[in-house]
Order: sequence, then structure tokens, then C-alpha cells
Amino acid sequence: MNLKIVIRVTGLLLLVEGAAMLVSLLVSLATGGSDAAAFVWSALICTVPGAAAVLLTARAPQTITRREGFLIVALVWLIFSLFGALPYVISGSIPRYTDAFFETMSGFTTTGASIVDLIDPFPRGILFWRALTHWLGGMGIIVLFLTMMPAFGIGGLQLYDAEVPGLSVEKISPRIHQTARIVWGVYVLLTFLQTLLLMFGGMSLFDSVCHAFATMATGGFSTKQASIAFWPSPYIQYVITLFMFLAGTNFTLLYFAGKGHFSRMFRDEEFKYYFLFVLGFTILIFSGLLIDTLMPAEQAFRDALFTVVSIITTTGFATTDYLKWSPVLYMLIFILFFFGGSTGSTGGGVKIMRIVLLLKNSYYELRRIIHPSGVIPVRFNRHAIEPRIISNVLAFFMFYLMVFFVSTLFLMIFVGDMDTSMGAVASCLGNIGPGLGSVGPAFTYSHIPDAGKWFLSFLMMLGRLELFTVLVLFTPSFWTEQ
Amino acid sequence: MNLKIVIRVTGLLLLVEGAAMLVSLLVSLATGGSDAAAFVWSALICTVPGAAAVLLTARAPQTITRREGFLIVALVWLIFSLFGALPYVISGSIPRYTDAFFETMSGFTTTGASIVDLIDPFPRGILFWRALTHWLGGMGIIVLFLTMMPAFGIGGLQLYDAEVPGLSVEKISPRIHQTARIVWGVYVLLTFLQTLLLMFGGMSLFDSVCHAFATMATGGFSTKQASIAFWPSPYIQYVITLFMFLAGTNFTLLYFAGKGHFSRMFRDEEFKYYFLFVLGFTILIFSGLLIDTLMPAEQAFRDALFTVVSIITTTGFATTDYLKWSPVLYMLIFILFFFGGSTGSTGGGVKIMRIVLLLKNSYYELRRIIHPSGVIPVRFNRHAIEPRIISNVLAFFMFYLMVFFVSTLFLMIFVGDMDTSMGAVASCLGNIGPGLGSVGPAFTYSHIPDAGKWFLSFLMMLGRLELFTVLVLFTPSFWTEQ
Repeated sequence: MNLKIVIRVTGLLLLVEGAAMLVSLLVSLATGGSDAAAFVWSALICTVPGAAAVLLTARAPQTITRREGFLIVALVWLIFSLFGALPYVISGSIPRYTDAFFETMSGFTTTGASIVDLIDPFPRGILFWRALTHWLGGMGIIVLFLTMMPAFGIGGLQLYDAEVPGLSVEKISPRIHQTARIVWGVYVLLTFLQTLLLMFGGMSLFDSVCHAFATMATGGFSTKQASIAFWPSPYIQYVITLFMFLAGTNFTLLYFAGKGHFSRMFRDEEFKYYFLFVLGFTILIFSGLLIDTLMPAEQAFRDALFTVVSIITTTGFATTDYLKWSPVLYMLIFILFFFGGSTGSTGGGVKIMRIVLLLKNSYYELRRIIHPSGVIPVRFNRHAIEPRIISNVLAFFMFYLMVFFVSTLFLMIFVGDMDTSMGAVASCLGNIGPGLGSVGPAFTYSHIPDAGKWFLSFLMMLGRLELFTVLVLFTPSFWTEQ
Repeated sequence: MNLKIVIRVTGLLLLVEGAAMLVSLLVSLATGGSDAAAFVWSALICTVPGAAAVLLTARAPQTITRREGFLIVALVWLIFSLFGALPYVISGSIPRYTDAFFETMSGFTTTGASIVDLIDPFPRGILFWRALTHWLGGMGIIVLFLTMMPAFGIGGLQLYDAEVPGLSVEKISPRIHQTARIVWGVYVLLTFLQTLLLMFGGMSLFDSVCHAFATMATGGFSTKQASIAFWPSPYIQYVITLFMFLAGTNFTLLYFAGKGHFSRMFRDEEFKYYFLFVLGFTILIFSGLLIDTLMPAEQAFRDALFTVVSIITTTGFATTDYLKWSPVLYMLIFILFFFGGSTGSTGGGVKIMRIVLLLKNSYYELRRIIHPSGVIPVRFNRHAIEPRIISNVLAFFMFYLMVFFVSTLFLMIFVGDMDTSMGAVASCLGNIGPGLGSVGPAFTYSHIPDAGKWFLSFLMMLGRLELFTVLVLFTPSFWTEQ
């Protein structure tokens, strides 16, 4: 383990974060906010040690090992959040550091869980910074998934190796720029498009940018406490639904679709199931709302579709409070907490590909039992999937469940209530935002005790980095073996 | 598919069931009960068609195919329950057939979920029949697991092939008698021992026999509505705890322990983890009860141990109502709903071996990620486990979760309440007995609508037969391919 390179990368990150704060400073100045000084100070606190770290490690090696990679990836989110909390605290918008750290981790992990009980009067610079943490987090995550994760053997994207140009497990460095250019291009373009479409619907430029940032990152921070319910316009709600759906799609598929290869998109099995899951759950909930309530059909459909897409993509925007629905519908939503976006999207959670591989393996097992002598591998996107990958997906899912149950029990010690604990843990681990009980869509996380907030912040990072990246750091053999 | 042999086996089963009813008739006569006529009629209804089926199919082939095996196994529990409900209905003890069927399926699947709201005044013959359904069900299940299931590629007992004498996947028939003799010997002996020990503690002969039947089958039917809380004697409660624990242990291990090979027992990994899980959960709940309540330490320990063993072994006896504990402890118990007994025991649920294999695979995956070039198979009982078996265990677990979630949603349509639905489904699928909410240890299933009772009866059978046995019957290729 070469610590020099870890320090150097950390320094570079702080410089990037300082630059991001300066962008927020510009927004603050342009909107005449009271928060300008906070950004100046925060940027200084980031850039001075950042620059020092970079200068002092000029002779660090140019390549990183696998282990250094794991450590750096985990550090990225931790350091960004530790320093990213500064503008909130210095500006006095969120005076307590614990709260500010929670809010920042929630931003960079694209979770969208908030401790702010009334966001509307916050200064513009701070609101922009909050949305920007989402957008930067989303940007970081798609690159991480498309480049480093496959090399780590995590994320299921090994499956795409042969298909997507510009990706190779063996040689990341020469292709990292090309891949990053493509997906960032898609990301920036879609953010721009969504901003335009929202403004067209009557949303202000500022709100449009902030919501486009939060949507494309599948984050969920809104500039309004009422979230998207603040804008009852069906047009705005459908636009956001569409872009949440796109943000939960593999960005390389969007790239091909953008180049006119739509068939490629619909031939992709993960996309097909993603589409079918959204369709299926929407129909179920739409029917349920029609039976249970007197809502007009269009509104019931819109609420059902918006909520399903918001939860499955792990965005967490709300146009309605699903906890007020009947228990069956509420339970359907909670099941969706364990789905998540597509691989190579900004969505969190278990991910559609993993869910599909697990379900397929189960179905194939029935055929194996009937034909015990046959070799029947799971097929995905017309490839036979190696048992090694099934085992990886299984391990991921088991860790996910274990972390969910153990964390729920742990959180219950502080919170007491089972619904709230289950909801908060599933929501933070899946990077969703709203949960159940007293952290439902109508509430915030402000009342959770500090220990719980730190713990949930850790869960957001654990979930965002696909568990393994963080969990390997806790194994003795990571640190001791050569 | 040769239907003749299926009919023949069905006929034989009905003759066995008729004989079991005659045993209950003897108990009824000996105790001067009003239910004697019911047993005479029921036995006639079983034996007449049974004998006819056997006589008419005398020329059926002597060997059965794999597919016929699946069908017969599923039919055993279905037919036993369809006919076994007769004594309840004819005697008028449980006048409605739906209720009687539920109670009988609950008996034969060793679940112990009851629709009887006041069992104490039931005639002795009926109470004995109710306990006997457990005991026969348990007897059936251990033989099924030790003989046919491994040949089906189900149950994880493939792992034991090399180790346990008298078991072979390839040639069942010549060894089935030897294996059955060993495990039935252990089963009968332990039932006898427990009866003696309970009588020694002051329980009547009749209650002792009924409770020994229900314990060794990990069933859970008591002759008292208050279950084991009826006997506040710590001695009786500890005796039942011990025998529940033994009933949840692999019976071949008990056989070796009985022959003095104790080391073999503690070298077995499944037993080791079974022991550790019981210990760990007991300590957690014991500590929780000490903190939360003013209970004397011995009683807190006894309640914790009894409840943990009762739930993990899927027995379902109660000395206390765990729903009155604090939410954290109650949640711990619900997590135990997804554990289950050891393979080759009478316990239901997911089973310890599967849980351990799933957990181990997850831990090994972290090592695989750190050492991507190494081949690191999961090891269990000093054997490298084939990926094929891991995939089977994974498929089982996923089906278990899927069935749990889909069934909960389905049951909520009839029941409304989420806790009750989750509890009833987890409890019936795991063959436990008590659930959560309005089917908690202090209540019964009597208020569940009929559709729900039939559905839960199906879940008991599905869970008892390790899902696959029943699920393959629903695949088209089971019926169409040659």
C-alpha cells in the first residue's frame, strides 16, 4: 500500500471540491445571497491542504494498485462529504456539523435524505451547492461504474465487456478518458435538456437547474420542502418522471440510443426488465389507487408512475405521500426499495441486473432439477453467465440483506420504532431518500439522534459504493497480506 | 408419467392413514370419549378407497421415476390432509371443512398453526389425533430428507453423501430401509424419553405423549390453549427446550452421538452454527429482557432460550408472548423466522446449512475480490462445495423470499393488516406456527378468511416440501418433456 499516492489523490479531490465551491460562490454572488463568505472560506479550507498534498507528493508513482484503488474510492466520498459540509456550517444554514455532514453525504451519494425541516428560505448559493453535490456525486458514480468497478469484479458490468466499446477490464487507463467523455457527454446533455424542458413548463431557471441536477443524479433534493408536489403541473411531473427514468438507465445505452441505435436499447435485457418492472408496478399501484380512492384516473396514473419511477431509480422525489396509501400499495413501494436502477446509471440499490440474474438463476434451477444431468447456465444478453458472477451477485445480495437487518436492529436502539428504522436503513442503503414511518415522504431525518445520523451516513456510502468496495477495507487480509 | 404407480402409492398412504385413525380410536375408547364413531367412519372412508386403489394396481411397476417421485411426494401431504380432516369434521370438534383441513395440513406439515380458539375441552381422541398428525408428519419428513430429497438434488444433503453410511444418491432403494430404521429409531427413542421426562415433572401421561409428539416433530400443537405457559414449571419448560433443540438437529448426528461419537457431532459445521445461532440470539434477547423488564434473571433466560429454540427449530410452542417484548427483541425473533432447523431434522424453514452456505459464500467473495486470480471455493465440513450446490441454495433462498413477498401482498388483500400478513406467511411457509400481529402467540388463525386459510395451507405444504418439490410441478416442462 503506497500511502503517498492515496494522499496525492486526496489532494486532487480537495482541489476539485474547492473549485465546485467557487462555482457555488458565483451563484451566491449572482443572486445577492448572504452566503458568499461561507463559500470563500470553505474553498480556502479545501484548496490549501489540497494543494499542499499535491505538491508534496509530486514523486508519487503514476499507477495505482488494486488495493489502493479500493481505499481511494472509499476516501473520495468520505473526504468530499467531510469538507463539503463546511458551506452549510459556516453560512449558518445548517449550524450543527453532524447535520451538515449527513446532508452532504446524502448529496454526494445521490441519496437525497434531508435533515432540513424547511428548505425554501435557504440562500440560493447554499441551495445550488446542495444540488451540485448530487450532480457531482452522480458524475463520479457513473465513471466509477464504467471504469474501476469492473476491474474490482464488482457491479456486474463485467457482463458488458465484450459489447461496449471503450471498456476493458484489463487496461483501464488508456480508455478511461474515452468512456468518461461519452457518459459525461450524455449526462451533461440530458441535464441541459431537462433544464430547458422544466423552464418551458414555467419553472424558474434556478429551480430548473437544481432539479435537473437532482434528477440526473437520481438524488432527490428539491429546492422546496414539498418536493415536486410544489408544482402541481402534470407537464412538469411527467418531464421529471421521464428524466428520472433515463437517469436510471445504463448511460452507454442512452449513448447508443442517442446515436440512433434504438434497437440496441430494447435488445438489452437489463433495460427490458427495468421497463417491465416500472410498467408492472405502475399498473398494480394505479389499479389499487383507482379502487381505493376517488382520485381522477389521470392523477392516479401520474402519482403511481411518478412514485414507482422515483423509488425504483432511487431518486426519492415526491408528488404524493405513499404512506397514506392502503397497506398493500405501501408494501409494494417498500418492495421497490430493494430494486434500484440499472448498472451504469446513477441509480443506487441492488440494481436491476442483479435482481434479474437472481430471479433467472432460480427459474433455471427448476429446470436443472428436472434435468439433473444437463448443464444449464443462466443466460443474460445472449451470453452464458459464469457461476463466478452468479456467486458474486449472490454475495452482494446476502450482504445487502444482512446489512439491512443488522442496521435496522442497531438503529432501533436509537429510534425505537420498527417502521422508521426499517425505512431509514433501506432508504439510506439504497440511496433513495424518503423511508417509512417518521422518515416518510412528508417528514425529514432531523429528529434522528446524532449517532443514528452518522450511522445512516455510513450506510449511504456503503450502499453507493456497492458494499464490497467498503467491506473489503474491513477484512484483515486487505491490510496484512501482500 | 405412469399414473398407475401414483394411484397405488396413494392407496397405500390411505391405508396407513386409516391405521393411524384406528390408533386414535383406541385412545378415544380408552378415555371414554364421544369421538369414537368419528374415527370409525373416518378410517372406513380412508381404507375402502385405499384398499381398492392398491388391489386394482397390483401390476404397477416396482420402480418409480424421478418425476413420479416429485408428484407422489406432493400428493402424500395433500392426500393425508384431505382425509385427515375427517375426524375433526365428523366428530363436530371443528365443524367447517376449511378449518379442519387447515388444522390437519398444519399438523402433517409440523407447522402447529391452529384455528382452534379453545382447545382444552376437546375430546381426548381428537387431541391425540391432532398430536399424531405432527408425529407422522415429522416421521415422513426425516425419511424424505434422508432418502429422496438428495436424489432430487434438493435439501443440501448431497453434502453428506460421502460421510453418512447408509445414504447414497445413486441407489436409494436398497438402503432406504437401513436409513429409515436408524432415524426412526432415534425419533421413537427420543419421543419415549421425552414422554418419561415430562411425566417425571408432573405432566399427565396423555399430555406428555401429545407434547412429545409435537416436540419431536417440531410441530407445536399443545393440548392447552395457553401452550407451554400452562405449565409454569421451569423443569418442564427446560425439558421441552432440550427436546426441541434435539428435534432441530440432524438425526444422523444424534444417532452417532447416541453411539458415543460426540466428537462427530461437534465437528459437524451445521451443528456448530446451529448451536452458535441459538446461543447468540438467546444472549441478545436475554440481555434485552433484563434491560427492558423487571423479570427475575432465571425467568428472562428461560423465556429467551425457550422462544429462540422454539422459533429457530420451527416448533412454535410458547411460554410467553414475544409480541409484548420491545420492538428490537420482537424484530430479532422475526429474523429467526427465516432460519429454520438443521438438514435431516424435522425442522422447517430455510435451514441452518443453507443460511451458513449463503453467509460463507458472501465472506469468501470478499477474499475473491482481494485475490481476483485465486480460485476460492466455499468450504463446508472440510469439503470444497461445488458452485452447482451454491447455485441451488441461492435459488432456494430467492424463491423463499419471492414467495414470502408475493404471498404477503396476496394475503393482505384478505387480511388488510401488514404485520399479520407478513407474520402468517413467514410462519406458515417456515412451518413455525405463531406469527405477528393478530396471529401472534396469544391468538389463532381462526379469524383469517377462508381463501386465506386455503392459501396458507398451500404455503405450509410448499415450505415443508422445500419449495422445489412443489414448484417443479408448476413448470410446463415437467409435464411436457419426455
